[in-house]
Amino acid sequence: MVKNTVRVEDIILFLAEDVITVLGDYKGKFIDNIVDVERVNELSLDWINPNKKEKQKIAENSSARVLLTDSSIAYNETLENQSKVLIVVSNPKRSLISVIRKFFTESFTPGIDKSSFVHPDATIGDNVYIGPNCYIGKCKIGNNNVIHSNVCIYDRTVIGNNNVIHSGALICVDGLGCMRQADGKLEEFPQIGGVVIGDNCYIGGNTHIASGSLSDTIIENGCKINGLCFIGSNDILHENVWITGSTMLAGSVEVGRDTNIFSRVVVRDWCKIGNGCTIGMGAVVTKNVPSGETWVGNPARKLDQK
Amino acid sequence: MVKNTVRVEDIILFLAEDVITVLGDYKGKFIDNIVDVERVNELSLDWINPNKKEKQKIAENSSARVLLTDSSIAYNETLENQSKVLIVVSNPKRSLISVIRKFFTESFTPGIDKSSFVHPDATIGDNVYIGPNCYIGKCKIGNNNVIHSNVCIYDRTVIGNNNVIHSGALICVDGLGCMRQADGKLEEFPQIGGVVIGDNCYIGGNTHIASGSLSDTIIENGCKINGLCFIGSNDILHENVWITGSTMLAGSVEVGRDTNIFSRVVVRDWCKIGNGCTIGMGAVVTKNVPSGETWVGNPARKLDQK
Amino acid sequence: MVKNTVRVEDIILFLAEDVITVLGDYKGKFIDNIVDVERVNELSLDWINPNKKEKQKIAENSSARVLLTDSSIAYNETLENQSKVLIVVSNPKRSLISVIRKFFTESFTPGIDKSSFVHPDATIGDNVYIGPNCYIGKCKIGNNNVIHSNVCIYDRTVIGNNNVIHSGALICVDGLGCMRQADGKLEEFPQIGGVVIGDNCYIGGNTHIASGSLSDTIIENGCKINGLCFIGSNDILHENVWITGSTMLAGSVEVGRDTNIFSRVVVRDWCKIGNGCTIGMGAVVTKNVPSGETWVGNPARKLDQK
Repeated sequence: MVKNTVRVEDIILFLAEDVITVLGDYKGKFIDNIVDVERVNELSLDWINPNKKEKQKIAENSSARVLLTDSSIAYNETLENQSKVLIVVSNPKRSLISVIRKFFTESFTPGIDKSSFVHPDATIGDNVYIGPNCYIGKCKIGNNNVIHSNVCIYDRTVIGNNNVIHSGALICVDGLGCMRQADGKLEEFPQIGGVVIGDNCYIGGNTHIASGSLSDTIIENGCKINGLCFIGSNDILHENVWITGSTMLAGSVEVGRDTNIFSRVVVRDWCKIGNGCTIGMGAVVTKNVPSGETWVGNPARKLDQK
Repeated sequence: MVKNTVRVEDIILFLAEDVITVLGDYKGKFIDNIVDVERVNELSLDWINPNKKEKQKIAENSSARVLLTDSSIAYNETLENQSKVLIVVSNPKRSLISVIRKFFTESFTPGIDKSSFVHPDATIGDNVYIGPNCYIGKCKIGNNNVIHSNVCIYDRTVIGNNNVIHSGALICVDGLGCMRQADGKLEEFPQIGGVVIGDNCYIGGNTHIASGSLSDTIIENGCKINGLCFIGSNDILHENVWITGSTMLAGSVEVGRDTNIFSRVVVRDWCKIGNGCTIGMGAVVTKNVPSGETWVGNPARKLDQK
Repeated sequence: MVKNTVRVEDIILFLAEDVITVLGDYKGKFIDNIVDVERVNELSLDWINPNKKEKQKIAENSSARVLLTDSSIAYNETLENQSKVLIVVSNPKRSLISVIRKFFTESFTPGIDKSSFVHPDATIGDNVYIGPNCYIGKCKIGNNNVIHSNVCIYDRTVIGNNNVIHSGALICVDGLGCMRQADGKLEEFPQIGGVVIGDNCYIGGNTHIASGSLSDTIIENGCKINGLCFIGSNDILHENVWITGSTMLAGSVEVGRDTNIFSRVVVRDWCKIGNGCTIGMGAVVTKNVPSGETWVGNPARKLDQK
């Protein structure tokens, strides 16, 4: 649990125009933690989900003294007797997230740890953190990136801005394209394609992104790829694709924008998945998936098919 | 194959009160290896499984001169003519394990390799080995831990005693919780939970353990998690859970004590698996599993269901 | 995209006896890239697949000035008017691969990066590259190996010649063999087996190869194992086995020569897969697979079974 003592006054000042009103006396009050509902204590900042029934009761029963709520809660005698403070905002969850980001997380100080290898021909943008024990080959890295420890970025990689790359991630590992010869031996096709990653992406820990074979593997802006995923050669992920942990896309797969691919999915090479699709946990995708559809199972089928 | 010349006398002295009796003349005899049954040679220490039929014959046919056996083997003329030595113990397998541990494995000398990064605010207990190229954030690590090379432990991790963490393992990587916005963009929920690991755990190579979101991800005493597993945010593994390689638990999964989860299983988020369950290889678990049951398949079902 | 300006004359000289003839005037001409068919430009080296229909038309329509072709293309007026150059060879794809290898890839300069840990008792052959942040235990490594950054090779490993091991790969991590005790606790069987890898193998990024338990895990010559695979204790892979990404072989699995195991397969421990088999994407193999057969599904079955 992260603890940090924050004055309620400072939260109100920080949220600024998001605050509709504040109910109760907040002078001199403070919070020091934000936790799950089961662990809320007197010094937590709690929040009331606007979609919940009986919000009033939830507010009255919360152990916390300070609550982020929408404007539907009445500051009644019960709340007053508890000296509770209601910070009324239009979107309590969003305000909670802002407060967590501001007061409960630390940002990394830009800089390249001296234990990391950076190729002399690499280009590194401004305000980039590169943690210990990384390998940065001949590549271009934009601005405001956080690259955690033990990341390996091979040559022929281009990375945009505002990305987070977690430990152990591998970018642009030479893909493995094999041709079996008459004598059974496997000849590898040499790989000279790169990897291009846009802006605002999350690349998970120990995730493996293969180089393109001749052209590039492409991950567009806003993609979020969790840990232990395998992204194959020449895959193209359009904007805002969300891939949860341990998923495997074989080579030359194309995924449309705003698509969700849930855990432990595998997608056959050359398959095209459309925009706004959902691929369910554990699915084995062997065909193209049209935009907007939800597919599940092994082999994967459209969900509403009987 | 690990070789080490060990006098039979020293084995007997080391096993001490585990030894019921010794049959045959062991003076001046020695062994130098312990191998699989197909590779046993004259200088191996062999053992006779008490559950096998025809144990007497196995003992007589073994190429090894020195055998760990239970008390059911008769030291007859055939064994005598071969000058065999029988070290009679109550549990030959356990004695074999003790001998391997004592004479055929090396322990790591405590110390932190100078190539590893350790945050100044980290707390490291006594008798801890931290191999090369590790990243140790602001965390607490107890006593008698072996942390192999290239392990990354992020901030907000608490680790107990007597654990082994293999190379490339990631502990407390920020989980990835996304909210898709109206414009398709994915907003990440900031992660401030930690990871708490108890005592006597095994964390496999390249395994990924996500941080909790607000509260902690918890791995209780005695859990053994093999390599390339993904343990999600806020998962709770109770005592003595055994997870074999490449398994994926999504977020907020709870696994009861003494449960076995075999290879390449995936468990949906929020699922609860009871105590003493067995989840079969490749299962896709989408529902709660009551204690004591065995589930297999995709989607997983109770094994004896028709 | 990798760019390198190469004179056509030098390509012809390099291909030497592979060249049947050259059609068109190549003096002073050059190429500077090799790319996918959709991206071919005036300065690309293009190739015409001998198996394609309408090869003549493809040659005439290619944007590239220089083409690798077989001898079936007529150097007609259309080609002449475009000043095209045809380098006629018996196997255009193979010649293309040779040109890529020679002119578009870089080889690693042998040497051990100073940031890597190498055990004083390790034996390293000639012409070996070991990238940054590796851990090399007490092991034997042959000649002409490329070991990328952040690879961990534990003790008891023997590696032959001409292998490529990608970043984050783990070789000979102690396997996890557990025995559950009467009180629920898991006792680990100590691991003293090694890993033996032959020649000409590819070990993918973040792939995990477990040590043998008593004997060794064995990977024979010419095996190609892509990223994020798990190879279990005492597995034996015979020659030229091809395993694509994210596959998991449990312990004591044996795979025959020239077998293909496609992505995200899992194989139960002790299963034997024959020679020349194909195991389809996502298969869950629970039984022995006879030589020459193709198996798919969960649980996996022979493909032509009804």
